[in-house]
Amino acid sequence: MKAVVVLSGGPDSATVAYHARSQGYDVYAITFNYGQIASKETLHARMVAERLGVSHMIVDLSSLRDVFGESTALMNKGIPMPSEFEPSIIVPFRNAIFLSIAVAYATSIGASKILYGAQGSDAPFYPDCREDFYRTFQAAARLGTDTEIEIEAPFHNIKKSDVLKLGLKLGVPYEITWSCYLNNALHCGVCESCLNRKRAFADANLKDPVRYER
Amino acid sequence: MKAVVVLSGGPDSATVAYHARSQGYDVYAITFNYGQIASKETLHARMVAERLGVSHMIVDLSSLRDVFGESTALMNKGIPMPSEFEPSIIVPFRNAIFLSIAVAYATSIGASKILYGAQGSDAPFYPDCREDFYRTFQAAARLGTDTEIEIEAPFHNIKKSDVLKLGLKLGVPYEITWSCYLNNALHCGVCESCLNRKRAFADANLKDPVRYER
Repeated sequence: MKAVVVLSGGPDSATVAYHARSQGYDVYAITFNYGQIASKETLHARMVAERLGVSHMIVDLSSLRDVFGESTALMNKGIPMPSEFEPSIIVPFRNAIFLSIAVAYATSIGASKILYGAQGSDAPFYPDCREDFYRTFQAAARLGTDTEIEIEAPFHNIKKSDVLKLGLKLGVPYEITWSCYLNNALHCGVCESCLNRKRAFADANLKDPVRYER
Repeated sequence: MKAVVVLSGGPDSATVAYHARSQGYDVYAITFNYGQIASKETLHARMVAERLGVSHMIVDLSSLRDVFGESTALMNKGIPMPSEFEPSIIVPFRNAIFLSIAVAYATSIGASKILYGAQGSDAPFYPDCREDFYRTFQAAARLGTDTEIEIEAPFHNIKKSDVLKLGLKLGVPYEITWSCYLNNALHCGVCESCLNRKRAFADANLKDPVRYER
């Protein structure tokens, strides 16, 4: 059975891809270039898909820069990159855009399921990572395609550190994942996403295999 | 109050834009190039927006060609263009993709409402033109943005000929709209969309101001 996995190149979605494969799905990974500063994450997504040995498509949505305007620090170098959560790092409704394209892709290739990497540590901060959101989106997808398509965030109720523990068992190559909101040679180590990653590896008592600037 | 209008360049969405303006909204029109053969419809959308004197953004989603694959006659010249409805002219979940980007745009510019041109004559054929779809999508949009955003297809329960009658009162310049699924100098006159248009003008007892090849 085919499943579409929304793959960002970060540890959460990489773990979802490995999880889906371990469940027996024929994985079709899809990654979006939406004008994010950290454009290299799409290359890391490619590396993860190649390592897992699954189909991978990168979709160019870079003209969404005009849609999102100047409002988000992930896309606008003029906004300081914060080290803690703040609204400037929300890219509004981004997951819904990704999921809607994933639904179209699933319909086109005959996949009955879509998986994405929203996990429990993100849910309090990002509305489009919450269970009530994606369940309702699934209802809209079923009505809008006249199918019984399923949308699942398998880690929506476990925290990021538990995702990593699970991923370790699944053999996820975290050394080739990318979390940083910047686009430097190494992870910066001080943006909100790098700090979340460091914290999750520490909470899981695992060694983070990536190198940091700081 | 700002409203985002999904504008294709066809008569239905042009009428929605004029309707929104007549309701007092400050209209922000958004148009998508999604790899359709009829790419000139985006230029007609621009003309309509200019005539109405409203903001207009064209978003390039042409890489969706890879997502939709070879499955739809609206995007693949290798599939014969039918004169009657058949599944090959469905672009699956297209309206959901457009609406999700429209929601992101609305959030970015501070608009509280999104309008799109689904009308009653399309609802039996296109799942993402139905009221239950867009009401459920609205619920997902509210959950996914933590806002009270509204999504409306004001003509969802009236037929295309009645949309035209209303548009005539609103002064919609139907001569600069584009309906044809092909991209020739004139409307072909024989594709499903041209025939729908002809039929709706005839049902409304109105003269269609565009010229047809046949």
